[in-house]
Amino acid sequence: MSEVYAARRARLHDQCTAAGSAAALVSRPANVRYLCGAVPPGAVLLLGPVQDVLVATEVPSAPPLSSGPPRSDEPRLLVTPGADGDPAVAAADLAAADGAESLAVEEHDLTVARHRALGAAARRVRLADLGRAVEQLRLIKDDEEISCMRIAGELADQALGELLESILVGRTERHLALELERRLVDHGADGPAFPTVVAAGPNAGRPGHLPTDRRVEEGDFLTISLGADYRGYRCQVGRTFVIGPSPADWQVELYDAVFAAQRAGREALLPGRAYRDVDRVTRQVLTAAGFGDGLEPCTGHGVGLEIDEDPRLTPSAMGKLDACVPVTVEPGVHLPGRGGVRIDDTLVVRPEADGGPELLTITTKELLAL
Amino acid sequence: MSEVYAARRARLHDQCTAAGSAAALVSRPANVRYLCGAVPPGAVLLLGPVQDVLVATEVPSAPPLSSGPPRSDEPRLLVTPGADGDPAVAAADLAAADGAESLAVEEHDLTVARHRALGAAARRVRLADLGRAVEQLRLIKDDEEISCMRIAGELADQALGELLESILVGRTERHLALELERRLVDHGADGPAFPTVVAAGPNAGRPGHLPTDRRVEEGDFLTISLGADYRGYRCQVGRTFVIGPSPADWQVELYDAVFAAQRAGREALLPGRAYRDVDRVTRQVLTAAGFGDGLEPCTGHGVGLEIDEDPRLTPSAMGKLDACVPVTVEPGVHLPGRGGVRIDDTLVVRPEADGGPELLTITTKELLAL
Repeated sequence: MSEVYAARRARLHDQCTAAGSAAALVSRPANVRYLCGAVPPGAVLLLGPVQDVLVATEVPSAPPLSSGPPRSDEPRLLVTPGADGDPAVAAADLAAADGAESLAVEEHDLTVARHRALGAAARRVRLADLGRAVEQLRLIKDDEEISCMRIAGELADQALGELLESILVGRTERHLALELERRLVDHGADGPAFPTVVAAGPNAGRPGHLPTDRRVEEGDFLTISLGADYRGYRCQVGRTFVIGPSPADWQVELYDAVFAAQRAGREALLPGRAYRDVDRVTRQVLTAAGFGDGLEPCTGHGVGLEIDEDPRLTPSAMGKLDACVPVTVEPGVHLPGRGGVRIDDTLVVRPEADGGPELLTITTKELLAL
Repeated sequence: MSEVYAARRARLHDQCTAAGSAAALVSRPANVRYLCGAVPPGAVLLLGPVQDVLVATEVPSAPPLSSGPPRSDEPRLLVTPGADGDPAVAAADLAAADGAESLAVEEHDLTVARHRALGAAARRVRLADLGRAVEQLRLIKDDEEISCMRIAGELADQALGELLESILVGRTERHLALELERRLVDHGADGPAFPTVVAAGPNAGRPGHLPTDRRVEEGDFLTISLGADYRGYRCQVGRTFVIGPSPADWQVELYDAVFAAQRAGREALLPGRAYRDVDRVTRQVLTAAGFGDGLEPCTGHGVGLEIDEDPRLTPSAMGKLDACVPVTVEPGVHLPGRGGVRIDDTLVVRPEADGGPELLTITTKELLAL
């Protein structure tokens, strides 16, 4: 793997040099991981004029940056213990010592206070903004990344499928969420990709609902949204079910509308399609069905090392989809006091010649009455 | 409860006015919660010249700021949906509209990019630094806060005690951690206070070790550190056990040293004692016993709405303990390749007249061979 990380760092190097910065400091955890692999929490990466250095407050536990003997294309490891020692400050010191005149930092990650500390530590270095350069590199995933996400999707489908075979009525949202997360790990996930959503009755369909002690009851809508983290890569699958022998008419009507909207969004995932178009086609179906009020601002988003990363599928988003960009399509409607429906999938954008979008989360989307 | 929050906001108001800022923007989540109670993720609090406003991207789910009808001493709620809408920017707008000339912000929380967006949104307003003013208010806990932490401690002790009654050999660190977190929630915790640490064999005693697939084996040291979140308030309890009929001599020797160090730290928790003194007495015991190499920079820290908050017990820490300040005492020694010992407790500083430090985590600290 370490060649992959070296190649990613080289691309960033070239961009920085082109932008006039001989050195860059990467502090956002997902960005550091993208460029170095798994590293200790809080570690930062200096792409220096002379050398690349991973600065951490602790020695990486196994696995190191790569298995096998250290390689020339790996960054040097600098460990700076000390309760108040900020690795970013140590990295700025190092950049100055190596004669860097300017250092591009991630202004969307560093706090004002940290940024000031960097400036004070390396007075001779001009601090520039690296912007979201690493996030841009992360947009299009390689085969290795996508295969990790494929496995993450299988793990989430598996955990959800097993839960559906058990008795749900009378159990609390909290317990169902914990059981799902245990099953994810049982099957080999490194952990949940995000806090598992289990929302019953009036909570169903609420975005980002945190599980409560509400018990599942007959007649409820039940929304479950979960994801697995596999080697750092994430996925998201969300489904809504009806509890009891058969759904009420209003439940069927609402479900059909969200299902149609989600399908429209999925089918729009083609290279060259504008982000906002995907959002619009999804939204239009819900609006036409009379559920346009109070829709969430976002109907989907990129996913990878973070559960919510670029691109964002919103009415104001700028840009177009590329092939091999994984995104979620997750429209939802919540009717206050009654509940609602959400359907989330994770897909990879593929050209029609390759069969169109690749669905990573295959749990059925027909309305199940459990 | 809402009177409590109103009183806290009033104290902060006074401090800001004294510091020359008519308005303050609180963005750090734990600080917003301290001043308003449970709020939606990402919500920020504007302490304005005219009004206090809680700005959120979604309507708070139950429970609202307080139960019962809205009160005059509650901040107004402003909901600003929109995928790209930053509540902090909306709050800065509002401060400007209300005629604030300066706005104190949390520079240790806001990123450089967000800070710039605030400045652009409210050009007529001078941005000042609120610093850690709210963190300072949070240092000394009131009875309500301490009773929540007492319950959090009981929940963690209970989950740990139950686990010790089960068979541990052959189970992975990961599964033991998940079982502990399930038990925490079963007993009424809102969740774990931090990612549960289960470290077996050579992993034992490693700070912040994340559970792996390493199985517990005969002869292992086993370090477990967990905490409960109860109504936002947290605690931490950590213990190290030996697996098998009887510990080896080196294990007893190491355990006794860490135990003695941890006791020295606990006994030093008295009002007026310097933070660094508590750290020093703990460290000295380990150094005298020959375990002084590679000690962690921090032997304990404050705890409350965050698991790791002010004060920090380090060699360089400035300041003295006050009564009613909860802290952890958690020395540890890790011998690479062999494992190690950590013992963590959460205590509340109390004067000797009141019986000295109050121990919130009462699981036995004698060396158990399981």
